[in-house]
Amino acid sequence: MDYNRIFQDAIDRLHAEGRYRVFIDILRNRGNYPNARCFAGHNGARPITVWCSNDYLGMGQHPDVIAAMEETLRDVGAGSGGTRNIGGNTHYHLELENELAELHGKEAALLFTSGYISNEATLSTLGKLLPGCIVFSDELNHASMIAGIRGAGCEKRVFRHNDLEHLEELLAEAPRDAAKLIAFESVYSMDGDIAPIAEICDLADKYNALTYLDEVHAVGMYGDHGGGISERDGVAHRLTIIEGTLAKAFGIMGGYIAASKTLTDVIRSYAPGFIFTTSLAPVLVAGALASVRHLKSSSVEREGQQAAAEMLKTKMRGAGLPVMPSTTHIVPLLVGDPAKCKKISDILLIEYGVYVQPINYPTVPRGTERLRFTPGPNHSEAMMDDLVRALVEIWDRLEMRIAA
Amino acid sequence: MDYNRIFQDAIDRLHAEGRYRVFIDILRNRGNYPNARCFAGHNGARPITVWCSNDYLGMGQHPDVIAAMEETLRDVGAGSGGTRNIGGNTHYHLELENELAELHGKEAALLFTSGYISNEATLSTLGKLLPGCIVFSDELNHASMIAGIRGAGCEKRVFRHNDLEHLEELLAEAPRDAAKLIAFESVYSMDGDIAPIAEICDLADKYNALTYLDEVHAVGMYGDHGGGISERDGVAHRLTIIEGTLAKAFGIMGGYIAASKTLTDVIRSYAPGFIFTTSLAPVLVAGALASVRHLKSSSVEREGQQAAAEMLKTKMRGAGLPVMPSTTHIVPLLVGDPAKCKKISDILLIEYGVYVQPINYPTVPRGTERLRFTPGPNHSEAMMDDLVRALVEIWDRLEMRIAA
Repeated sequence: MDYNRIFQDAIDRLHAEGRYRVFIDILRNRGNYPNARCFAGHNGARPITVWCSNDYLGMGQHPDVIAAMEETLRDVGAGSGGTRNIGGNTHYHLELENELAELHGKEAALLFTSGYISNEATLSTLGKLLPGCIVFSDELNHASMIAGIRGAGCEKRVFRHNDLEHLEELLAEAPRDAAKLIAFESVYSMDGDIAPIAEICDLADKYNALTYLDEVHAVGMYGDHGGGISERDGVAHRLTIIEGTLAKAFGIMGGYIAASKTLTDVIRSYAPGFIFTTSLAPVLVAGALASVRHLKSSSVEREGQQAAAEMLKTKMRGAGLPVMPSTTHIVPLLVGDPAKCKKISDILLIEYGVYVQPINYPTVPRGTERLRFTPGPNHSEAMMDDLVRALVEIWDRLEMRIAA
Repeated sequence: MDYNRIFQDAIDRLHAEGRYRVFIDILRNRGNYPNARCFAGHNGARPITVWCSNDYLGMGQHPDVIAAMEETLRDVGAGSGGTRNIGGNTHYHLELENELAELHGKEAALLFTSGYISNEATLSTLGKLLPGCIVFSDELNHASMIAGIRGAGCEKRVFRHNDLEHLEELLAEAPRDAAKLIAFESVYSMDGDIAPIAEICDLADKYNALTYLDEVHAVGMYGDHGGGISERDGVAHRLTIIEGTLAKAFGIMGGYIAASKTLTDVIRSYAPGFIFTTSLAPVLVAGALASVRHLKSSSVEREGQQAAAEMLKTKMRGAGLPVMPSTTHIVPLLVGDPAKCKKISDILLIEYGVYVQPINYPTVPRGTERLRFTPGPNHSEAMMDDLVRALVEIWDRLEMRIAA
């Protein structure tokens, strides 16, 4: 058994397929986002513009957020020192859980150390607690949901992306009395399309299924208070569990679920990924609390983001660039080849100071490799014009197709 | 299918067994640890002494750590804004990974959002990449290691706790050419005993097995530079992977592995729990960096902790309290009943201002329920005397056995 050979082969495969990942070494400049510094391939730091951050609204730089974090550091120190059960349960955690429950109109909420683990822990625990449960999962669900469903060890039926007919077909085939759970996302982050939540809830009612909605790419950004697409569509009350993140529009780190008091208590009491881990550092919780509260009452950031996304799509389409259909703040540009995708990204960074990461398999299906732009309220029209000019030049240089 | 009934039953079972968890609502007072404030069952905050924190050395309160975090907040803001691959790879992450690799004498290190996910992601990915791999797992391994091994979907052989003969028996039974991985911990946190690392490495050599050592309850606290038991015993170079946490002795949050360059790259490139999650917030990484660096050169905290643990054990034994055998900084006191364990903890908190959490199943086996004290360099002799007096009074009140 030659272990090193096996490990080296695994790395070589990635190089051969052109999808070996190189992390770009950056530092953001607070108060000046999307401007940042890049250390990759240069001597010392070089200024860049970040176009692929999930800090969609720039809240990670908001003065209220930073102030709350500084105050907490001074008041209680750095880490929590324990799991939620053993010394790591602070007043901040309880306050934020109350705030998030209220945001989604649910009885309770529960914090996790990440969105990934909130999906993994909740879905795997639910599936284990419901004997004979069948999970109906959208084919484009995030890796963390897939990990959770696999961890549950229960039966899984995958329905075609956002396809209500296919979902109903699968629900109808399942035994009438079996426990059922429909797991899906509101905004699919790599395509930027939106699930028909109300219609999926109709099917859940008809077939007595629970619903699990991942809103990580929507919380803070949709709905009058940032409650996500489920708030915008007025359907939050119909969902069994809403899952969200503190690491994207809220600008910090961590994940959560919001649900009934009993169901939240069940996950709190049974999920290993919740129980056996140090709780979120109070400094993060305090920052998230400030961010959630700000976005509950302020819509300036949301409106700025929507306007920026619309403007960038229009400019790209106007220049004949292959913008993929998206009804949200996500602006994906189709490349369709992993090596070319990486090459464009490299040229943008080195020649134009534009940072956008190539998105290759397994994050997206092979053949749909893309660049994914996330314009926000802090991206100016001048930045967009620069970006589009750069892209057109590179498309031309690499002899790629531009629409007439 | 009555979902609510199933969820309610799951909660009722916990109440019936006396192991429903109630989280104590606390806030620490920075610079004054182990003093804290408690909000549970009182009107407003009440002063308490924390005896069960995993911030073993009080580093979460260290001025250098707080200063580094404040500076980072001011410099780059709150969250990282993305996964390590997409916008969330900062200079801080790379610096800390270099520091941790050096701490353990390995070529490379990789950060995760928690110790839990570092175990889960690494073990499950390793098991999947090595065809036909058999994992040999200590029976007291942490829940996160068990989750990782299960996630790998490979064969698992559980050996009796720290039992070299049993481990060898199982290794000898396995096919000679099969890939093998021995997964174990250095300090077992609920009992406070230590694994025979060198002897396990001997067996690994003999049977051509990889080794995976969880050092979460040892990093920062053992070895001349805080490299853990593997540094103390001079065996770090013999281990394939050393896993650690930033959330206990280092006082912050997050986890990591240290290993060869190739193996680290494999986990970086293949583990969903690493790839598909927002990276640790730079503010945490900067705090951890300050903490790791401090404990590399300062031994005052380590020595203070060892002295405090020794003193508390001696005082407890002297008072006839049932201290469980422990060769480390952990001081477990056997109760043996979940309801009584919770009752003692409640009395301590309400009547004596002493915070120590009851440790019940599933964290420890049924019948071995205990109180687990973690004295550190900041617990004074007067605090210990108060604690022992309180325990003796309660043991007497509840008519529990005191040794002659």
